[in-house]
Amino acid sequence: MKNLIVEPLLLKKVTQDIFTKVGLSPEDAQIAADVLVTTEMRGVSSHGVMRVEKYIDSILGGGIDPQASLKVIREGNNWSLFDACRGLGLVASYRAMEHTIALARKNTIAFSLVRNSRHFGAAGYYTNLCSKAGMIGMAMSNGDIIMAVTGAKESSIGNNPFAFGAPAGKRGPITLDMAMSKLSDGKIQIARLKGEELPSESILDSQGNPSLIPQDYFDGGTLLPFGGHKGYGLALMVEILAALLSGSSLLKEARAWNREEGDPRGVGHFFLAIDYTQIVDQEAYNQRIEALIEELKGATPQSGVDEIYYPGELENIQEEISRSKGVELLPDNFDSLQRAAQRVALNFNMEELVNVRK
Amino acid sequence: MKNLIVEPLLLKKVTQDIFTKVGLSPEDAQIAADVLVTTEMRGVSSHGVMRVEKYIDSILGGGIDPQASLKVIREGNNWSLFDACRGLGLVASYRAMEHTIALARKNTIAFSLVRNSRHFGAAGYYTNLCSKAGMIGMAMSNGDIIMAVTGAKESSIGNNPFAFGAPAGKRGPITLDMAMSKLSDGKIQIARLKGEELPSESILDSQGNPSLIPQDYFDGGTLLPFGGHKGYGLALMVEILAALLSGSSLLKEARAWNREEGDPRGVGHFFLAIDYTQIVDQEAYNQRIEALIEELKGATPQSGVDEIYYPGELENIQEEISRSKGVELLPDNFDSLQRAAQRVALNFNMEELVNVRK
Repeated sequence: MKNLIVEPLLLKKVTQDIFTKVGLSPEDAQIAADVLVTTEMRGVSSHGVMRVEKYIDSILGGGIDPQASLKVIREGNNWSLFDACRGLGLVASYRAMEHTIALARKNTIAFSLVRNSRHFGAAGYYTNLCSKAGMIGMAMSNGDIIMAVTGAKESSIGNNPFAFGAPAGKRGPITLDMAMSKLSDGKIQIARLKGEELPSESILDSQGNPSLIPQDYFDGGTLLPFGGHKGYGLALMVEILAALLSGSSLLKEARAWNREEGDPRGVGHFFLAIDYTQIVDQEAYNQRIEALIEELKGATPQSGVDEIYYPGELENIQEEISRSKGVELLPDNFDSLQRAAQRVALNFNMEELVNVRK
Repeated sequence: MKNLIVEPLLLKKVTQDIFTKVGLSPEDAQIAADVLVTTEMRGVSSHGVMRVEKYIDSILGGGIDPQASLKVIREGNNWSLFDACRGLGLVASYRAMEHTIALARKNTIAFSLVRNSRHFGAAGYYTNLCSKAGMIGMAMSNGDIIMAVTGAKESSIGNNPFAFGAPAGKRGPITLDMAMSKLSDGKIQIARLKGEELPSESILDSQGNPSLIPQDYFDGGTLLPFGGHKGYGLALMVEILAALLSGSSLLKEARAWNREEGDPRGVGHFFLAIDYTQIVDQEAYNQRIEALIEELKGATPQSGVDEIYYPGELENIQEEISRSKGVELLPDNFDSLQRAAQRVALNFNMEELVNVRK
C-alpha cells in the first residue's frame, strides 16, 4: 500500500479531537496535537501520529491523567520545579518550556524541571519553541531502561533523549535531537525487515553477548550507547538533570508509558532557555550564525553526497513540503490513528482526510 | 625508559615556577600549574604537563599574553561575558568558572562566556570546580578545525570539548569530559605505533576518502565525529555556545594555540553552573545520586569486565593514587617539561623531582 498524503490542518484537527474525546481540555488537546503533527510533518514518523494510539492506551488504562495540570512545587527567579501530576508529557513539556522562555526573557537564562510526567514525544519540538521565541534551548527527558551502560550485560539506563536548538537567521532553526543509543529501535526494525546485519557494537543479545542479528534485540536484548562511554555519559547527564534534580523516578523505576492506574512512576524532564539577545545584538547573531552555516555547508562534499546539512535542516525542508503538499503518512501509522479514533468512539471519515488533496 | 614517579607538590611547584619565569603573576602561575598537574594526576596525560612546553612557546612567540587579565565586557545578574585579552586559557577559564559558581550561588543557575582566549586544557577540570563547590557544571570550548562534518571531505569544525560534572555524595565527582571525534589524536598515534588499523569511520585521508591507516591522518587527513551526525551536532552546539555567543573566532578562524604576535584570533569558552541545593536538599541529592551510581555499578558486567565505572571514576581513582604514591610521568613528557624549564632559563634540578620518593 502506498503512503497517504494528508492535509496537515485536518490531521491536526483529528488528532486534537481524539485527545478531546479522551478527556483533555480543548487547549491541552490542541497542544498535544501540535507536538505530534508538527513532528510528523518534519518527517520524524517514529515520534509522530503513530504515537497517538499509545498515549490513548495509557490514558484509558489510567496511567496518564488527561485532566492533570502542571503544578509548581518550588521556584526561583530563573527556574521552576513542576509536578506534571501524571499528565500527558506533551502538554506538561509544552507549558514548562513556554514558562522557561518567559523566565529567560526576564533573566537571560532559565530552566524548568518536571517530575512525574510521561513520554514527551520529540525533544526537538521544545527547542524549536525556543528558536521561534528567538532563544537558544535545550530539552531532555529520562525514560525506561533499554540500554546497557559501558561494560554491562543488561539494560540499566534509558535511551535518554537530548535536544539542543538555536535560531539560524534567515534559515530554519538548528535542531539537534538525538537519543543515546548507537541505533534506534526503528533502524533495528528496518535491518530486520531487510535481512541485514547490524553494525558492530549496536546491541547485546539476551545473554549479554555482542550480536549483529536484529532479532536478538527484540528477543530480550539491549541497546548499546553511541560512542561507547560518551553516549553512556550523556545518558547519565540527562538522568541527573531531568530525573534526579526534578525528584522524578530514576533508572529502572522510570515509566515513560505508564498504563497502571495509581502507579506514581513516571519520567522527568529538563528544559533550558537562553535569551541571547541580552548578550549579542540580534543582527550580529544572525550574521554570524548565517556565516557559520554557510561555511559548514561550503565544505567539499564526499563523493555521493549532494549537500552538507546542518542539524535539523532536512526536517525543516520536510516540514515545508508537508505544509505545501500535505503530510505523507505510512499506511501503518494511518491505521494506528484510525484505531485510536475508534477507541475513543470518535466519529470521523478517515477517507475525507486522505482525499482532500485529490 | 621506565615511567618516572614524581612528587605532585614538587611537580606543581616546578610548573608554577616555569609559568612565573615566563611572565605570569604568582597567582596566575599557581592556577595554570594546578589545572595541568591535577589533570596529569588524573591520568589524562594528553592534557597534563606535556602541554607546558606548548603554552610556553605560545607565550614566547607572542600569541599568548602572560600578563593579560580577564575583562568584563557585559554582564547580568546570572551571566558574564568576558574578554580573556589573549591570556592563557587555563587562567581565564579558572577565573570565569569561579565567577560563574559565585553567580550561581546567588541565582541558582549562571553562565559565563569567554572570548579571545587560548587552549583551556581539560574541560573536566572546570566542572570539577563546580563539583567541589557542590554544584552541577558544564564547560565547553571551540578549537582549531581538525574534524570533517558529516558528508564533508575536509576539516571544517573543531574537535570541540564538552564536559559535564556533578557531585556524587560520598564518592568522587561524576566527570564526563569528551571531545567530538570518534578517536583522539593520541589513540591514532598509538595505533600507528602498534601498526594497527583504525576502526572504520574514524578518519578521512588527505583526499577526503575513508581510511583505516593511522598515518593517513597525520599526512593531511581529518578526524570524523563520533556517532556521525550526533558528534557533528554536539560540536556545532559547542561552537555556538562557546564561540558565537562570546563573540570569539569561529570555525576556520579559531586558533587555540596562537603563536603570532598581535594576531587577534583565539577561541571561546562557555561555563555553566547550577546550585542544585536551592532545588533539592543536599542530603536527598546525596542519597539519590549514590543510589543511582550503585544501581549503574550493580549491573552484571560483561565477561572480561571487572567493574562498571561511572564517568570520571577511573580518573578519581588515579588522582588518589597520584596523591599517595606520586604522579607517573612518561619519560617524553618529563623531557618536554625539562625543555620548557630550559626555555625560560629556570634553574632547577630535575633529578630532585624524581628521586624524592626513593
